[in-house]
Amino acid sequence: MTEKAIFYHAGCSVCVDAEQRFAGALDKSRFDVEIVHLGEQKGRLAEAKAAGVRSVPAFVIGEDVYHINHGADISAVG
Amino acid sequence: MTEKAIFYHAGCSVCVDAEQRFAGALDKSRFDVEIVHLGEQKGRLAEAKAAGVRSVPAFVIGEDVYHINHGADISAVG
Repeated sequence: MTEKAIFYHAGCSVCVDAEQRFAGALDKSRFDVEIVHLGEQKGRLAEAKAAGVRSVPAFVIGEDVYHINHGADISAVG
Repeated sequence: MTEKAIFYHAGCSVCVDAEQRFAGALDKSRFDVEIVHLGEQKGRLAEAKAAGVRSVPAFVIGEDVYHINHGADISAVG
């Protein structure tokens, strides 16, 4: 069974690099990866903040948040 | 061809969690993952610092460093 992994980003260069390196690199037999551009999908901001995302890029997997490097504070996104 | 990915950690809980989530989750057809415990392998500290690792846990892939969350500053490791 695959686990849902949501990659939140905002189009910044740090985000795009992390997306290319990690979001595409996770084992697809284990993870169902969804990529959410918070700059374009502002309706998803509340859900990201509720999950604990403080900056982008970040993965939310289950209950856990993984901030990868630092592109932008989520407050700068919306 | 696989790309080398080195996961540096120091045994902290944040490190272990990131290791379980990411180090084992990368697509093995794309990445050759090496796991280095800097607390036990102090001889690898210089190489990690030279690669740009500022805190653990972190991945070094090619020329790039990806700090995942924050377990400990590398200066606290050695």
